Amino acid sequence: MIASRLEQVHGAMDRLQIDGFLVLTEENRRYLSGFTGEDHHFDESAGALLITAERLVLATDTRFELQAKHEAPDYELVIYRDGFAKSLAELVQRFTIRRLGFECVRVSVQQFDQWRKTLKEEGATPEWVPLEDLVEQFRQIKSPEEIERTRRALALAEEAFLEVLKEMRPGMTEIAVAWDLERRMREAGADALSFPPIVAAGPNSALPHAIPSDRPIGTGEPILFDWGAKLNGYCSDTSRTVILGDADDTFRKVHDTVLEAQRRAIAAIRAGASSKVVDAEARDFIHQQGFEGKFGHGLGHGTGLAVHEAPRLSPLRDTPLEAGMLVTVEPGIYLPEWGGVRIENQVVVGEDGPIVLNRLATHWEALSG
Amino acid sequence: MIASRLEQVHGAMDRLQIDGFLVLTEENRRYLSGFTGEDHHFDESAGALLITAERLVLATDTRFELQAKHEAPDYELVIYRDGFAKSLAELVQRFTIRRLGFECVRVSVQQFDQWRKTLKEEGATPEWVPLEDLVEQFRQIKSPEEIERTRRALALAEEAFLEVLKEMRPGMTEIAVAWDLERRMREAGADALSFPPIVAAGPNSALPHAIPSDRPIGTGEPILFDWGAKLNGYCSDTSRTVILGDADDTFRKVHDTVLEAQRRAIAAIRAGASSKVVDAEARDFIHQQGFEGKFGHGLGHGTGLAVHEAPRLSPLRDTPLEAGMLVTVEPGIYLPEWGGVRIENQVVVGEDGPIVLNRLATHWEALSG
Repeated sequence: MIASRLEQVHGAMDRLQIDGFLVLTEENRRYLSGFTGEDHHFDESAGALLITAERLVLATDTRFELQAKHEAPDYELVIYRDGFAKSLAELVQRFTIRRLGFECVRVSVQQFDQWRKTLKEEGATPEWVPLEDLVEQFRQIKSPEEIERTRRALALAEEAFLEVLKEMRPGMTEIAVAWDLERRMREAGADALSFPPIVAAGPNSALPHAIPSDRPIGTGEPILFDWGAKLNGYCSDTSRTVILGDADDTFRKVHDTVLEAQRRAIAAIRAGASSKVVDAEARDFIHQQGFEGKFGHGLGHGTGLAVHEAPRLSPLRDTPLEAGMLVTVEPGIYLPEWGGVRIENQVVVGEDGPIVLNRLATHWEALSG
Repeated sequence: MIASRLEQVHGAMDRLQIDGFLVLTEENRRYLSGFTGEDHHFDESAGALLITAERLVLATDTRFELQAKHEAPDYELVIYRDGFAKSLAELVQRFTIRRLGFECVRVSVQQFDQWRKTLKEEGATPEWVPLEDLVEQFRQIKSPEEIERTRRALALAEEAFLEVLKEMRPGMTEIAVAWDLERRMREAGADALSFPPIVAAGPNSALPHAIPSDRPIGTGEPILFDWGAKLNGYCSDTSRTVILGDADDTFRKVHDTVLEAQRRAIAAIRAGASSKVVDAEARDFIHQQGFEGKFGHGLGHGTGLAVHEAPRLSPLRDTPLEAGMLVTVEPGIYLPEWGGVRIENQVVVGEDGPIVLNRLATHWEALSG
């Protein structure tokens, strides 16, 4: 699997006429080598790959030595003891790299200045070529194994959610419910969360990116969940909106509208469809039902090793969908002060139509019952 | 409190002759404004502060609008709807900023190129001045309130550890024990962890930055814990090494040596002492006892809003300690294959000597008993 990914990268390097490619982003390192070392802070790094036509190097520090050896057997290991830049200088000279591509999204201005300075001092003066989305573009198309991993992450997360629903009572805070969900996903074996869970009730659910608060959840108000588990590196991402007690007419109307919008968008997904057209299927329906301006975000995004990746489903981008892409479909309606409803599934783009990965019911009545 | 911090910043801006300062790092934003919005990924941001001699602006997006208003009342709020760079261009022109300082550790090469391009298109062409450690340098000296917050974070983390010790049995995996510790800190009200806990037994404890594994913990082997809780923004950071069953002579000798090294280093801490000399107190003793080359990391580091901050206690840096600095003191001895022992406390630099914030016993016998 890694061999075919490297073939794509080598092809791109040829086209770009770069003879070295520095892979700095955690997910791309893993995708191209199998190495799962994590960067825990924006200015820390578990290492870098240096790819040339002939050589595959994984440069890391002693903390990751055993792990790297075990996980990335295709790569020769370089352990840097005097900092990454000195090792890089040495490698650039040894491999005679003239044009060095690097992932410019994952190097700070400070670090880049230091690297250039150190390399120059060591006599290495490659031409630095900033690259954007090179590996990300390949990561859009998932292999059957990647889809299967996503399916498992999703199953774990859905199971945890059903257990949380059984325990949820009026008066519990959003924070307590969010923690219950996190705890269950972690104890069920998730590597990590895809992101901190959103549990937002009543007015708080009107914020698409609400942060759980210590407000007690009441009856008769929308309770919006958005959560995901990471398992074997792959992220799930789901939303459901439920209610405790009786639903009023507003909730029924809003929920039905979002659900039908989602159904229409999913039905439009197939290889060759435009991302913009799929978005419009949901958005136009929401507008027709009298909720113009109440769906203020894009319809969906790719998931994989990262929870947000290409492609985007949005009114702003016209990407032709390809078979094997894996996207969320998550329309929502947000009414300030009242609250919001969002429903999100994960869908694979098939040659002839959509393949929904979720097993969980979408309707609040099915979930509450 | 924020007023006196801003006074320091304004003083530095005068000296550097910059008329605008862009604060991008999460901890520095919080330190200078009270805004606690978090960046969950290296290429996401909860916002930026723009400080001039006369104006204080917090620029963020709609997700954080209410929170920012509530937490940072001293700042005028700018909500960017067309991206941060467009708002920045507008502010730079409105405030006639000619030299714009920015935290270059927290901007990627990609982002910086985009910002410059957008500002130029909008007709704003400030001179960009990369700044390093400007706020970090002020953050080194803690106020009594910051020390009190650290003390509370520490108390929470120590309490959780004692509960974990009561439950720990041979045969439990490192991962299970680490999760137990994490769960207890979170349920006791920690905002977050300072970092993922290290629980490393036997050979794994010989790695200073070990990652918990699924290896069952045995009797008679060192079990190294390194963990911390974040509470009200402040980080605790502690290490202890314990044992299940009987300790052999190696463990006793190594543990006693580390403990005495720590005692000596702590005794040397006071305002005016050199960071290098404090490090040498521990390091020299460890070498004298026959463990030359077995203590391969620095003695300690500052803690605060970040778990690793200035100053560093290391053989490589000669920083004069100042009253109000807050540092870890964490000597260790690591014997490949056998394992390692590290003991870490948090210590405030007092005018006349050290103030240890930990309440937890350091000796394994006291902890096991």
